[in-house]
Amino acid sequence: MCIRDSYTTIWLDQDSGDTVFAIDQRFLPFRLEIERFSTIEDVSTAICDMHVRGAPLIGAAGGYGMYLAWLAAPETAVDRYIEESAARLLATRPTAVNLAYAVNLMKDLLLSPGPRNEKARRARALAEKIRTDEIEFCRKIGQHGLPLIERMARQKNGKPVNILTHCNAGWLACVDYGTATAPIYLAHDAGIKVHVWVDETRPRNQGARLTAFELGQHGVPHTVLADNAGGHLMQHGLVDMVITGSDRTTRRGDVCNKIGTYLKALAAHDNHIPFYAALPSSTIDFSMADGVAEIPVENRDQREVKYIEGLIDDRIVPVLVTPEESPALNPGFDVTPARLVTGIITERGIAEASEAGLCALFPENR
Amino acid sequence: MCIRDSYTTIWLDQDSGDTVFAIDQRFLPFRLEIERFSTIEDVSTAICDMHVRGAPLIGAAGGYGMYLAWLAAPETAVDRYIEESAARLLATRPTAVNLAYAVNLMKDLLLSPGPRNEKARRARALAEKIRTDEIEFCRKIGQHGLPLIERMARQKNGKPVNILTHCNAGWLACVDYGTATAPIYLAHDAGIKVHVWVDETRPRNQGARLTAFELGQHGVPHTVLADNAGGHLMQHGLVDMVITGSDRTTRRGDVCNKIGTYLKALAAHDNHIPFYAALPSSTIDFSMADGVAEIPVENRDQREVKYIEGLIDDRIVPVLVTPEESPALNPGFDVTPARLVTGIITERGIAEASEAGLCALFPENR
Repeated sequence: MCIRDSYTTIWLDQDSGDTVFAIDQRFLPFRLEIERFSTIEDVSTAICDMHVRGAPLIGAAGGYGMYLAWLAAPETAVDRYIEESAARLLATRPTAVNLAYAVNLMKDLLLSPGPRNEKARRARALAEKIRTDEIEFCRKIGQHGLPLIERMARQKNGKPVNILTHCNAGWLACVDYGTATAPIYLAHDAGIKVHVWVDETRPRNQGARLTAFELGQHGVPHTVLADNAGGHLMQHGLVDMVITGSDRTTRRGDVCNKIGTYLKALAAHDNHIPFYAALPSSTIDFSMADGVAEIPVENRDQREVKYIEGLIDDRIVPVLVTPEESPALNPGFDVTPARLVTGIITERGIAEASEAGLCALFPENR
Repeated sequence: MCIRDSYTTIWLDQDSGDTVFAIDQRFLPFRLEIERFSTIEDVSTAICDMHVRGAPLIGAAGGYGMYLAWLAAPETAVDRYIEESAARLLATRPTAVNLAYAVNLMKDLLLSPGPRNEKARRARALAEKIRTDEIEFCRKIGQHGLPLIERMARQKNGKPVNILTHCNAGWLACVDYGTATAPIYLAHDAGIKVHVWVDETRPRNQGARLTAFELGQHGVPHTVLADNAGGHLMQHGLVDMVITGSDRTTRRGDVCNKIGTYLKALAAHDNHIPFYAALPSSTIDFSMADGVAEIPVENRDQREVKYIEGLIDDRIVPVLVTPEESPALNPGFDVTPARLVTGIITERGIAEASEAGLCALFPENR
């Protein structure tokens, strides 16, 4: 049985109302472990150390983190505690805008006037809504993206549609469905032949470990590639379209996603292959225009490059892959300029990757 | 002491004249092991399983392989044995043209008329010449490439010149100096500040393991990157030039090099950064024009993608990095079209990446 039939990536224990459960993704695909969060510290650590990852999922986790903070807030100086809790969560992953969106939404509620009990009820409801909104957004992204695959399937006349994706923008990165994978799951479930090229996505291998795992679990045909291989496959007609996620999108349609996405977008452009980013509008940062110049990109621990984690003798271990003394640099994201993006698939439909395109779909941000 | 001061990658034992030694590169950077080849089978296995790798080095190895074959050839049916030996060596790595060049040169000599003893002497001399030619070619590539780095150093006004390279086109890939690294070593030795961004080069990590090792040994400042990171660094002005090797180059200047090179060339082009391929003319295949259409690219064992080799507890082990049941595809090379190549650095000078440019430098192939 597919684990997606039994789990979402994160949920609140409905009986106690004070415990959050999540899949601890550090052990996938080798072992399924469920982690329990009781405090904001638990949630911060889980986001920072990537037990949970993926922009929509860490948005949902951030919402629950603020709810747990409220439950633990002292009787006096509540506001300061809430401010500090928000700052703590925001510092865990500076690039993803969903996290800021969810945390600030919760913070505004928790700093607003009102009786304490009543506020606990409303905070729980808001955190739950942030989670269910993410599910609903992903479902709609799937519905809007599906016709792109249907059209390609007609062109391919019964042959599988080959879709390349980078990193994990699957249901494991979200709460359910995924962003980039939502149209793929819907197409597969509708009986359309799809095959997914899965970039392994060094340094953390989210493609090889998570995307390959969740596609395999769902029965979607797929093949893992070194990140270097996609351009070659595109040159030889083996890729029909690229769909990735986005951690932050500017109002002009620049897309900030896992490091290496830009290289695949360049290759897609060079080979006249459509490149789509699939994202909930919560990742669109209308305050930013030029992604390369403005989006902060975190440099992560160099150990993620120097050591690779994998399975041997039923143990998950890190192995050293460089000379011990060689330094490494580990930028987490890159920015794909809008000129390389064929379209942006959102919960409201597909937008041209431009200010005009995004503002037409989201006029409230004009 | 730098191991490059003590070793080349391959050499004939001058006393016995019937044994070839080579660095077994499977254990670097963790352990230095020297392998002994007594038969053509030893050499074939070493090339096929990449104990020795890199176009110039496998050319030299191929030459010695044919010499060892001659020493073991039966009294009767010598020609057939030589033909079979050549075919065996050629089958080990179909992409690299140096191997074919060296093996065919040796085969032509060994199939020519002449007394057996005299031929052993001439075969040994030719195999030695193939090796020393590779060293001399690399030294000259360094001399011709050096002014490019000198010019960039003047523009950078004392700041280090940042050079990105992919895979290992270093002395370990050759016999000495390297191709892409030859100008870098010469610049470093001349006191020019250089810093090298080393692509780790999945799936086999020749950058992380070999290039980082040999640069570190020589004291050249360098930083290892996931293959995904180069485009981001180029967008942010952190790369001044790209220099890679080439396993096969067409007469129009298309460059076939380790998988992923094409993606870096696209990013260099998109960011107006010069992209050079450094290669001995033995890798130029004047019989081919369109690299993408004509150069055969080997798909290697999928286990190279699914397992990554590294060091843990002083043991070099492979760890599984994908779900056990997910398939992987492993193309070994890609082709960078000439339009993305700023120049081709050869032993005779720098050519424009075009038929006119290459034929001007190598008019004997016109």
